[in-house]
Amino acid sequence: MTSQQPRLRIDRRSPARWSVTFSNPPVNLIDAAMVGELQALLAEAEADERLAVIVFDSADPDFFLAHWDIAADPALTDALPPGPTGMHPWLDVLVRLSRLPQVTVSAIRGRARGAGSEFALATDLRFASRERAVLGQFELGAGAVAGGGPASRLPRLVGRGRALEILVSADDYDADLAERYGYVNRSVPDADFVAFVDRFADRVAGFDVRALREVKAFVNAVSLPPDQEFPPQMAAFWTSVARPETQQRAAQLFGLGLQQRGEAEFRLGSYLERLAPDGTAEAGQP
Amino acid sequence: MTSQQPRLRIDRRSPARWSVTFSNPPVNLIDAAMVGELQALLAEAEADERLAVIVFDSADPDFFLAHWDIAADPALTDALPPGPTGMHPWLDVLVRLSRLPQVTVSAIRGRARGAGSEFALATDLRFASRERAVLGQFELGAGAVAGGGPASRLPRLVGRGRALEILVSADDYDADLAERYGYVNRSVPDADFVAFVDRFADRVAGFDVRALREVKAFVNAVSLPPDQEFPPQMAAFWTSVARPETQQRAAQLFGLGLQQRGEAEFRLGSYLERLAPDGTAEAGQP
Amino acid sequence: MTSQQPRLRIDRRSPARWSVTFSNPPVNLIDAAMVGELQALLAEAEADERLAVIVFDSADPDFFLAHWDIAADPALTDALPPGPTGMHPWLDVLVRLSRLPQVTVSAIRGRARGAGSEFALATDLRFASRERAVLGQFELGAGAVAGGGPASRLPRLVGRGRALEILVSADDYDADLAERYGYVNRSVPDADFVAFVDRFADRVAGFDVRALREVKAFVNAVSLPPDQEFPPQMAAFWTSVARPETQQRAAQLFGLGLQQRGEAEFRLGSYLERLAPDGTAEAGQP
Repeated sequence: MTSQQPRLRIDRRSPARWSVTFSNPPVNLIDAAMVGELQALLAEAEADERLAVIVFDSADPDFFLAHWDIAADPALTDALPPGPTGMHPWLDVLVRLSRLPQVTVSAIRGRARGAGSEFALATDLRFASRERAVLGQFELGAGAVAGGGPASRLPRLVGRGRALEILVSADDYDADLAERYGYVNRSVPDADFVAFVDRFADRVAGFDVRALREVKAFVNAVSLPPDQEFPPQMAAFWTSVARPETQQRAAQLFGLGLQQRGEAEFRLGSYLERLAPDGTAEAGQP
Repeated sequence: MTSQQPRLRIDRRSPARWSVTFSNPPVNLIDAAMVGELQALLAEAEADERLAVIVFDSADPDFFLAHWDIAADPALTDALPPGPTGMHPWLDVLVRLSRLPQVTVSAIRGRARGAGSEFALATDLRFASRERAVLGQFELGAGAVAGGGPASRLPRLVGRGRALEILVSADDYDADLAERYGYVNRSVPDADFVAFVDRFADRVAGFDVRALREVKAFVNAVSLPPDQEFPPQMAAFWTSVARPETQQRAAQLFGLGLQQRGEAEFRLGSYLERLAPDGTAEAGQP
Repeated sequence: MTSQQPRLRIDRRSPARWSVTFSNPPVNLIDAAMVGELQALLAEAEADERLAVIVFDSADPDFFLAHWDIAADPALTDALPPGPTGMHPWLDVLVRLSRLPQVTVSAIRGRARGAGSEFALATDLRFASRERAVLGQFELGAGAVAGGGPASRLPRLVGRGRALEILVSADDYDADLAERYGYVNRSVPDADFVAFVDRFADRVAGFDVRALREVKAFVNAVSLPPDQEFPPQMAAFWTSVARPETQQRAAQLFGLGLQQRGEAEFRLGSYLERLAPDGTAEAGQP
């Protein structure tokens, strides 16, 4: 099992504003331990009546959240206590995150791919460092259907055409392109990024928390996907990852350096082209 | 009560094209008199079978519509004759505006905040002067829930993430940023602005008015929020403005120059940061 | 009747990737012959379990698909065998195209107006050559309601405001503006265009076709207009084209060079302003 180091550093800066920093070296993978900590955080936030805004950022400027830890035993996630939604723990986290009474912000520096992108899409707002942020849903490149709901959230956010492109290209989208597509709210120069996010969060934290919650509830009512859309996508994920070809592709990706701090994780979008259709990796540089 | 000067200058340029110019010095506030004139205008347009396009602009290049006149007695609005929708007169105006058989255009030079932004969102198209236009929903900064439906219209127009940002930041969005977000159709250089809007309106006014109405009806059927979404937001507005803290914030804003022609109205987005969370204004310049 | 030259060149590059090239000189009009060939192509693709991606492009770098051949006898289209949807053959093509298990791409160089734009909107992705692509729904400029569903697809893709602008302006939208509006996924420099589209298609063709289909099915479920929205729009098209004023406008457009390779087709957006409201053409250059 993974170490017992906490995955989240929670800084309760004020009663109205929390900052949550992901830290899971070497590349900020999402694993069962992180999901468990997120469930605890959500339970606390759901019960807090003074909290207005939560900012999620990363201790690693190259990785917001790399993706799901696919080397870990799925039983670890299955062993987590069921959340109040009754869904798979990861869906439980994402659905409850979207429905939090607080406003949530993903402050994205570095890569947010796969489940990392799904997390960002489940928060309310996404700000991206112009020079550092990279978003993508790489799952199809490995043979898998994304399981955390981007097929529900992306079309509503960026329209059908761009949603399909993001999902089927399995490619990397930098901050400026992500802004043009509406995948993130805004691309902000990295030199200004922390100050920009801080100003936004401090500003919102100073407003009336009751009115803030009412505003978010009205927006939720017209913009959140119905819960029932999510479980079939997670089921398709499990079916797709069980296929021998997907297992083979994943094995090849590990051979190329997946989940290590190196080129495969830095440039995963282009590394996917090194996999032959039968799951064998090609030689040479991509 | 406010003066009896008409708030709308209506120029029936041709049977197919009207221009309606807001004029309510010093900052083009929306008040009961303006709402009453808008209701009369709507009744006339609803019955007109030759009219194709209505352009709304402003006599003041710094203010399209500043916001609702919150110093006025709400009884003045309540005393207006009920409109055909049976909703609050302001909602009656906005809902009927969206459903007009004509195409409506907001030609935005200057500020369009709060109810001014709500008006622009209820028209069909929004063109913005690059150098002069500023849009925003500042209500939350004063402790209030926006009442005229932006929580219904913005998510459908700009997506959930940017809609929540606009509503909870309560900040100013200039024309270029508003274009990137989809808050306006297009940002147009101010030097070209009047000619651009005129060309658009004259062009549309030259087309077959029957086909034009059919096109708009088809788009309405798939893009307008259901009427029932609006009244709960207006109710939340009244609840939120009745809170002592909101009254205190409004009083502080009036102390800083709200509803006068000056810095507070020019830069309202940044002036909101001068309010302490308990509603007291800080000293010094923002 | 038109010649029996095939309208589609189908290049089955690999079991996973087809390229379909429109060729119907002089300006790539859509006619009954093309609709019939598209129906046959769709039937073949619907039954193919290995095919992942279909790219549609044009043999003419100035015209992707000019628009519907309005000089042709409508009886030719009516005489086509009814498709499985039971809708008008053109709607049958568009609805089935959107629902194909494969990912479809419009690689747009040159003009895509009217039904040509409707075709592009019914494919999943739209890439546009920055220097060459022009999109538009010019129908209203001739007095007609667009019949192939852009009033259903555009609001969901670009939002209500920009959808209404595109439909009622009847104007030309170049690639960069179309990208800013979300009308196309992306504007790509023409020098890079073919390589860009090829890389995308080859990449997607290398992924697991089962997972790809599942992803598209999930996106379809939340982003396609309901079928019943389309037939009333086609009915409105036929009603509008039967009006004497529309017939008069069309006659004037033919007098100006419609459906010939020349200025009227190159700059149709501005040529529409040469039509007087009563359908008579003005003298001189637009």
